Amino acid sequence: MLKKNIESVPKDKVEMQGAKGLQVQWLFSPKDGVPNFSFRIFHIEESGTTPQHTHAWEHEVLFLEGEGEVFVNNQLYPFKAGDAFFIPGGEEHQIRAKSKGKFICLIPNSGC
Amino acid sequence: MLKKNIESVPKDKVEMQGAKGLQVQWLFSPKDGVPNFSFRIFHIEESGTTPQHTHAWEHEVLFLEGEGEVFVNNQLYPFKAGDAFFIPGGEEHQIRAKSKGKFICLIPNSGC
Repeated sequence: MLKKNIESVPKDKVEMQGAKGLQVQWLFSPKDGVPNFSFRIFHIEESGTTPQHTHAWEHEVLFLEGEGEVFVNNQLYPFKAGDAFFIPGGEEHQIRAKSKGKFICLIPNSGC
Repeated sequence: MLKKNIESVPKDKVEMQGAKGLQVQWLFSPKDGVPNFSFRIFHIEESGTTPQHTHAWEHEVLFLEGEGEVFVNNQLYPFKAGDAFFIPGGEEHQIRAKSKGKFICLIPNSGC
């Protein structure tokens, strides 16, 4: 068993190309010994973005705070707190914040 | 891509032995086509409990609201909002709420 509080988890600036105003907390990752999937919490500034990219693994996303748009396969979908997105592997995607926000984004360990 | 809002996801009473005052929302499960892991949100009443049990798959838990104790392998660990627990497969566990609460509990699809 491993216990931690989210306040103790460092917020790392995301340096990937296309990321803007974005920090990530790796709540549980393979470094913690989790065998299958990783639990990440992202903090995004107003007008911040995640990278616009495509990869083989999926995302399961839940927005906790903020609003904006999710770009998936050349379409835009608005988001607000309480909205959740499943983005399968192979679909190009980007999160574009219109206000400061926070969201959970889960990935299989193959994406770490 | 699949989008849904948590308000649209039914709250199902958990009927397993040992569950008390417990409802679950399956935000993403194999029924939605997710390939690897499932995203569940639990709502627990004051004095509510999850089943006390052991199984082969792990849990990744984040408490969003409430307080109480997590029983793992004959030890009790207090929880409050912001606390997170990784409970590996094979460890006996139960969540015991002292106040009304809400938590995320993720499992691999092998546990569905």
